[in-house]
Amino acid sequence: MQFILFHTDAAGQARLGRIITPHGEIATPAFAPVGTQATVKALDPRDLHELGAELILSNTYHLYLRPGADVVEEMGGLHRFMGWDGPILTDSGGFQVFSLAERRKVGDEGVEFRSHIDGSRHFFTPEMVIRVQEQLGADIIMVLDECAVPDDRAYNEQALARTHAWAERCRAAQSRDDQALFGIVQGGIFPDLRRRSAKFLVDLDFPGYAIGGLSVGESKEQMYATLDVTVPLLPADKPRYLMGVGAPEDLLEGVARGVDLFDCVLPTRLARNAALLTHTGRINIRNARFERDPAPIEEGCSCYTCRHFSRAYLRHLFKAGEILAARLATIHNVHFLLQLMRDIRAAIAADRFSAFKKAFLADYFHSSQR
Amino acid sequence: MQFILFHTDAAGQARLGRIITPHGEIATPAFAPVGTQATVKALDPRDLHELGAELILSNTYHLYLRPGADVVEEMGGLHRFMGWDGPILTDSGGFQVFSLAERRKVGDEGVEFRSHIDGSRHFFTPEMVIRVQEQLGADIIMVLDECAVPDDRAYNEQALARTHAWAERCRAAQSRDDQALFGIVQGGIFPDLRRRSAKFLVDLDFPGYAIGGLSVGESKEQMYATLDVTVPLLPADKPRYLMGVGAPEDLLEGVARGVDLFDCVLPTRLARNAALLTHTGRINIRNARFERDPAPIEEGCSCYTCRHFSRAYLRHLFKAGEILAARLATIHNVHFLLQLMRDIRAAIAADRFSAFKKAFLADYFHSSQR
Repeated sequence: MQFILFHTDAAGQARLGRIITPHGEIATPAFAPVGTQATVKALDPRDLHELGAELILSNTYHLYLRPGADVVEEMGGLHRFMGWDGPILTDSGGFQVFSLAERRKVGDEGVEFRSHIDGSRHFFTPEMVIRVQEQLGADIIMVLDECAVPDDRAYNEQALARTHAWAERCRAAQSRDDQALFGIVQGGIFPDLRRRSAKFLVDLDFPGYAIGGLSVGESKEQMYATLDVTVPLLPADKPRYLMGVGAPEDLLEGVARGVDLFDCVLPTRLARNAALLTHTGRINIRNARFERDPAPIEEGCSCYTCRHFSRAYLRHLFKAGEILAARLATIHNVHFLLQLMRDIRAAIAADRFSAFKKAFLADYFHSSQR
Repeated sequence: MQFILFHTDAAGQARLGRIITPHGEIATPAFAPVGTQATVKALDPRDLHELGAELILSNTYHLYLRPGADVVEEMGGLHRFMGWDGPILTDSGGFQVFSLAERRKVGDEGVEFRSHIDGSRHFFTPEMVIRVQEQLGADIIMVLDECAVPDDRAYNEQALARTHAWAERCRAAQSRDDQALFGIVQGGIFPDLRRRSAKFLVDLDFPGYAIGGLSVGESKEQMYATLDVTVPLLPADKPRYLMGVGAPEDLLEGVARGVDLFDCVLPTRLARNAALLTHTGRINIRNARFERDPAPIEEGCSCYTCRHFSRAYLRHLFKAGEILAARLATIHNVHFLLQLMRDIRAAIAADRFSAFKKAFLADYFHSSQR
């Protein structure tokens, strides 16, 4: 993997770059739609290409449990299995395992957990999640980390020690040279812990750095403040990835602080709940006021859905429980975020990111539609 | 609407033709996928065009109840509402209403029923179903008929009298001249009633004739015998439509007896249940033997699904409950039936339909896969 930094906005930290992977290039700042179970829900690979997605994320925890990493490997790896020939990033499974709460038990060696599918017992170690991610074969893979409650200092101190030890073990366990292994900075909302974590990981010299443990319950202000502390400690010549973040305002705030990569289930999950993104805020298309509305979700939107279908039709599909509802809504929401990233990149290139951000947020939050 | 009959197979009744509608042409014999609620489940209009669908069916009963015919009309009619610019056929709603069993009450004037959605009361008359179908704006519309239990003689006698009176009233009620109204021959499995019905309707001179009341509980032999009696009584220069039939063997037997049009939910419904059509019979893709099967659903199949995805991936999607499972399976099954119709048309053109039918059925029913 290579990372080329083209330009940093004259007025701030927003940066324009490109990540080059064995399966193609990713213009940054980039947003990656999430394909948890080897499919971005309701979309097929052709949809993703047409939407201009250049990177998708898939989840090691889910694929390890079902269909199993050995099945994916035997079927030629994740790219071939899911029919997506572009870049893929897999997480380490750590975040999902730590979200299982009572269903997991962590120790220095690794983390034991019970499957959410059938209750079966499993044990993830740093070495094993690397092995699994090598079987899956993504272009960018992640270290095993422990994601602690963001404002629990004692927990974060303890978790950070493990996260760092695991990062070293993951680095040592890596056997493939065609996958870029990213380190993950943790430390909750505590600036000194974030500094400690960034320093430790940068010393290990990863090809990229993620910022983990955010968007997990802390306030927006705490998230942005943590980015303010953390991002400047990461090397300028490596991509910076803010994990699990995808609300439009957070993408803008992240980019403003020098983040290059984002992923989130937000656009796809909202879509399945009939919540559609527009430049003047979210609308719920099930609302009765759309019953006879011949307009597209958003005037001027160039997505397949907006070019062909009315709000009235989308409302009907949701009310009738039709599968096409999820698909058309997902196409729109993913387009919205990918178009936002294209607009962001154009703004950075023209040194007008700050004005772009301000104008976008003014429209998005001061709408009568919300 | 125009119907051109090009050729009848030298060795039998199978015929090759073309129906010309305001929204395009339909090569016959043709199979129409069903879009009950203004969407062929799990597909979008572009999928349908790519699959080579030339006609789709939609259901008056469902659209009348939700979103309402007035909503569809206000949104520019069904074609525009659902984004499908090709030919559409709507049924009269009669079949659905008569399927409601205890929820409906029939009289000579029409049929009263309660909605399956909210229990609200409604009354369909011949005049009203024509009015609703004119609001929807399909290219081919159907008369209101009463579909009786196929082997109940007394019920069929009574229902047939109503069906005939309603056919006359539908004809008289029609006000648009850009929609072709088809009559529907009823009469259960009783040859004399079918003859009576065919004669009555042919005297009314409809632009096309449907054969109703089949594939509703009678045996295959009874269905084929009823076609043997009925089809020869219909004028050769008008299209003949066998309603609600779509099993591969029934398409072949129908074509062999001179039927031109078919519709059925079979390919789409089977797909959502993981049952996939192949030339050697149906397979259920959830089966454990497909867990590590890198082959497509069927070798040589040119559908999008078979060109890009393995049986192992499809099995995974179904096991994981992913929306993409329904979409990819539906694409394959609809392709299978539309390709069968293309193959049938080529066979008729070459005067080898009978041999084609024999070979297809031998493969389909003698497979080790079933």
